Amino acid sequence: MAQNGSLEEFVAVAVDAAKIAGEIIHKGFHETKHVDHKGQVDLVTETDKACEDLIFKNLKQNFPTHKFIGVETSAATGDFELTDEPTWIVDPLDGTTNFVHGFPSVCVSIGLTIRKIPTVGVVYDPIIDELFTGIDGKGAFLNGKPIKVSSQSELVKSLLGTEVGTKRDSLTVEATMRRINNLLFKVRSLRMCGSCALDLCWVACGRLELFYLIGFGGPWDVAGGAVIVKEAGGVLFDPSGSEFDITAQRVAATNPLLKEAFIEALNQSE
Amino acid sequence: MAQNGSLEEFVAVAVDAAKIAGEIIHKGFHETKHVDHKGQVDLVTETDKACEDLIFKNLKQNFPTHKFIGVETSAATGDFELTDEPTWIVDPLDGTTNFVHGFPSVCVSIGLTIRKIPTVGVVYDPIIDELFTGIDGKGAFLNGKPIKVSSQSELVKSLLGTEVGTKRDSLTVEATMRRINNLLFKVRSLRMCGSCALDLCWVACGRLELFYLIGFGGPWDVAGGAVIVKEAGGVLFDPSGSEFDITAQRVAATNPLLKEAFIEALNQSE
Repeated sequence: MAQNGSLEEFVAVAVDAAKIAGEIIHKGFHETKHVDHKGQVDLVTETDKACEDLIFKNLKQNFPTHKFIGVETSAATGDFELTDEPTWIVDPLDGTTNFVHGFPSVCVSIGLTIRKIPTVGVVYDPIIDELFTGIDGKGAFLNGKPIKVSSQSELVKSLLGTEVGTKRDSLTVEATMRRINNLLFKVRSLRMCGSCALDLCWVACGRLELFYLIGFGGPWDVAGGAVIVKEAGGVLFDPSGSEFDITAQRVAATNPLLKEAFIEALNQSE
Repeated sequence: MAQNGSLEEFVAVAVDAAKIAGEIIHKGFHETKHVDHKGQVDLVTETDKACEDLIFKNLKQNFPTHKFIGVETSAATGDFELTDEPTWIVDPLDGTTNFVHGFPSVCVSIGLTIRKIPTVGVVYDPIIDELFTGIDGKGAFLNGKPIKVSSQSELVKSLLGTEVGTKRDSLTVEATMRRINNLLFKVRSLRMCGSCALDLCWVACGRLELFYLIGFGGPWDVAGGAVIVKEAGGVLFDPSGSEFDITAQRVAATNPLLKEAFIEALNQSE
């Protein structure tokens, strides 16, 4: 049995919570097609809220002294404070648009930071039953088997993941499109699955070589995936090339061989 | 038992062939991570070829007088002739880039045209074991259960699927980006899964409201999905708004409520 307060205990409790929340998501996912639009919106809200409550309750019971940041509570109030304390950062349902549409890329994302460093990551995709876990210094796993990032070293053979986000003002959309336009000439192809946490996990297991996203919701989108990428041998950084900041709503991830070329491509002027 | 030469017999034989090919793809999919780049290229070529041979052998045994068009044989020679004869149009492995990268959107696509009209469609995703079937006049199904397109009537609540294709000349990429840029202001969000046949099936079952692709490989990308979309209550047309032509390498699909608005958005000048 995992030692009380050990990283292994943290991950074990988070996995339990993610799997129970995953069951609720799995059930709701197949119901969205049978309700009207109003019903869909309610279903998302209810599922999101039920999953966050459940995960927080589980974690708080086990770790009453820890801090908690969740998309449902923190995004609603618009502020959160990340301290050096052990802090659980939770997105109970990453990919809500996919959830509403029955598009199969949704997940639960749970991350633990200690001294602001992502230390434990648990991302669970309940639709295809894939559980990604990462523990600082102890590796990354998919359904219990070790995973590693792609060993690709050439952009032209690399698959790029990104998302278009939710902002639709001209400046944001045009900057997004300009960036994608530049990158398209350099990479093999582009994928958009609609879940930032899954994009990170898919870099970690080598399905994508490159991923970046600018302007996502908050640290809950990346707190779980960040540990998993790092422990799979990947690198995380700000798309500008500077250091990754979990609170900055900007992330890029790849393997060490592609990092410099990726940063250059991301910051190429036209 | 299905009547000899009936549409039901055609679909039953195509399903058998797709499932056997799907097994080969499923096996190869999990091997790509364990071979080097040269090995990956060989694996794609071998898997593609093995699946096409197997599907054609199966279909020819049952329907020796029918015609056959396959991506492996026809794309290699650069030409194919679509006649009024019953013609099987096969993509043994749609989503080859995904296959190489272990990205989970790959499928077998088999379509039958009679008098040039898509009449039977079978699309099998072996990774998540989803079998889409459609028979002209008799409905569309996912794993045997009837499916229908989304009932959404507003672009702004619609999920759009497309792909960036394989051409990387400036004119093509810029036209692609301009179109996406225009559409992004009007739709809820954008997905790119990397498989045209699956995109069509996902419109048919309501996961995507909108899909278009300009400049794909050939009729094998759409022959299976076209029947499935139509039988699920959807509409297929050329992105310009004119009639769908299976040989034109251009396709758009949605539900009847969104068709006019989608065509307008696709053809908006900046």
